[in-house]
Amino acid sequence: MSPDDLKALTFDVFGTVVDWRGSLIAEFRPFGKDNGLAVDWDRFVDEWRSGSRNRIDAVRTGTLPWANLDELCGTQLDELLKAYGIRGLDEGDKNWMNRAWHRLKPWQDSVSGLTRLKKKFVTATLSNGSVACMVNMAKHAGLPWDCVLSAEIFHHYKPDAQVYRGAVELLGLQPHQVMMVAAHNYDLHAARTHGLQTAFVARPAEKGPRQTSDLKPEEDWDVAASSLEELALALGA
Amino acid sequence: MSPDDLKALTFDVFGTVVDWRGSLIAEFRPFGKDNGLAVDWDRFVDEWRSGSRNRIDAVRTGTLPWANLDELCGTQLDELLKAYGIRGLDEGDKNWMNRAWHRLKPWQDSVSGLTRLKKKFVTATLSNGSVACMVNMAKHAGLPWDCVLSAEIFHHYKPDAQVYRGAVELLGLQPHQVMMVAAHNYDLHAARTHGLQTAFVARPAEKGPRQTSDLKPEEDWDVAASSLEELALALGA
Repeated sequence: MSPDDLKALTFDVFGTVVDWRGSLIAEFRPFGKDNGLAVDWDRFVDEWRSGSRNRIDAVRTGTLPWANLDELCGTQLDELLKAYGIRGLDEGDKNWMNRAWHRLKPWQDSVSGLTRLKKKFVTATLSNGSVACMVNMAKHAGLPWDCVLSAEIFHHYKPDAQVYRGAVELLGLQPHQVMMVAAHNYDLHAARTHGLQTAFVARPAEKGPRQTSDLKPEEDWDVAASSLEELALALGA
Repeated sequence: MSPDDLKALTFDVFGTVVDWRGSLIAEFRPFGKDNGLAVDWDRFVDEWRSGSRNRIDAVRTGTLPWANLDELCGTQLDELLKAYGIRGLDEGDKNWMNRAWHRLKPWQDSVSGLTRLKKKFVTATLSNGSVACMVNMAKHAGLPWDCVLSAEIFHHYKPDAQVYRGAVELLGLQPHQVMMVAAHNYDLHAARTHGLQTAFVARPAEKGPRQTSDLKPEEDWDVAASSLEELALALGA
């Protein structure tokens, strides 16, 4: 790594910057209670996430046509509600549930860390989430992005090459001038393949109390940190 | 117009938010002096702008292949330097000149007006400028965008339909929930064609002291204002 070359940081968002699981559960538990739904919401959101991930992979392999993540999550939600035998929710309720992805809350260090990093670098999302999701979430959570980049812009999902290469191109930079920041080793692995620098941020509670993957860096990433504040420190920001 | 429907504002940038002409001249005059160049910089930047606009139209009609505005302006600059008989500038100088578009300065009311508007609405660029240009300019000038949208994302230049429709889609909204803000009637005309709301912001000095076009609204745009502060006032922001 040549830190002097570094101009921009691109961030994975779900899990890396915001606590998707905790945020969804915190919204759905009281909602379930109010609506008389006896649902294990921890399991529900885990299955929602993994089912949506399967849909992403179906788009990547061409089994499904392009659809943005709001649409994929919406279809997955319909299926899940059916599987859980949850009836009686109207379109407004379902829309509110799906839009919970636009209201995810940041980890405690995210806003302060990003604020520091933004002073020295261009900070951009590089998420599989939709542009609208990134924009609404940023407004809701106070995330100070310079630029919102998303799989939706490229009509390709991570870890497809088009996402990383496309981001570098839109930022008007060379790959080594950009650092991918993620809590997921697969994302950094792909980014490195395309010449980006890499920073692992450990989020050991992202997937719940029994998380077994992504507990630590699996390659010699350029930086490994346990928060965005620590990343800022490591990058002199 | 139903003001209650309005969720997002998309902004033309060159001329509407930043003073491209004044900013370029202010950089090039001292540069010319330092380099012993006897050039009428007012005319030079006007010709640069109009030549680049011609290149945009050549891309729109398919005469030129897609290239972002940094590339189009760079080619136009090379041609112009030749036409003016300016020799002896190295690649660094030329790059610095072309990158002046990334360093344009906002009109006096732009940052304060956008800051107000951002509290109530999603604020996004919708410029023919490149994504990198918008990002670098925002950092340089302190423009607080929620989202950077650009012709480059759609590989179509304004006033092509794809730009307006694409922006509405990426923002996850309906056309009537989005307002195009521009100092140029042609831009608003196209936006209205695709169902967006429209706001004209008069910038009577944008094209210099002898500006003859876009001095006033040519249709009954939803809002007409003389500054972004006045637009904020009109929209209750």
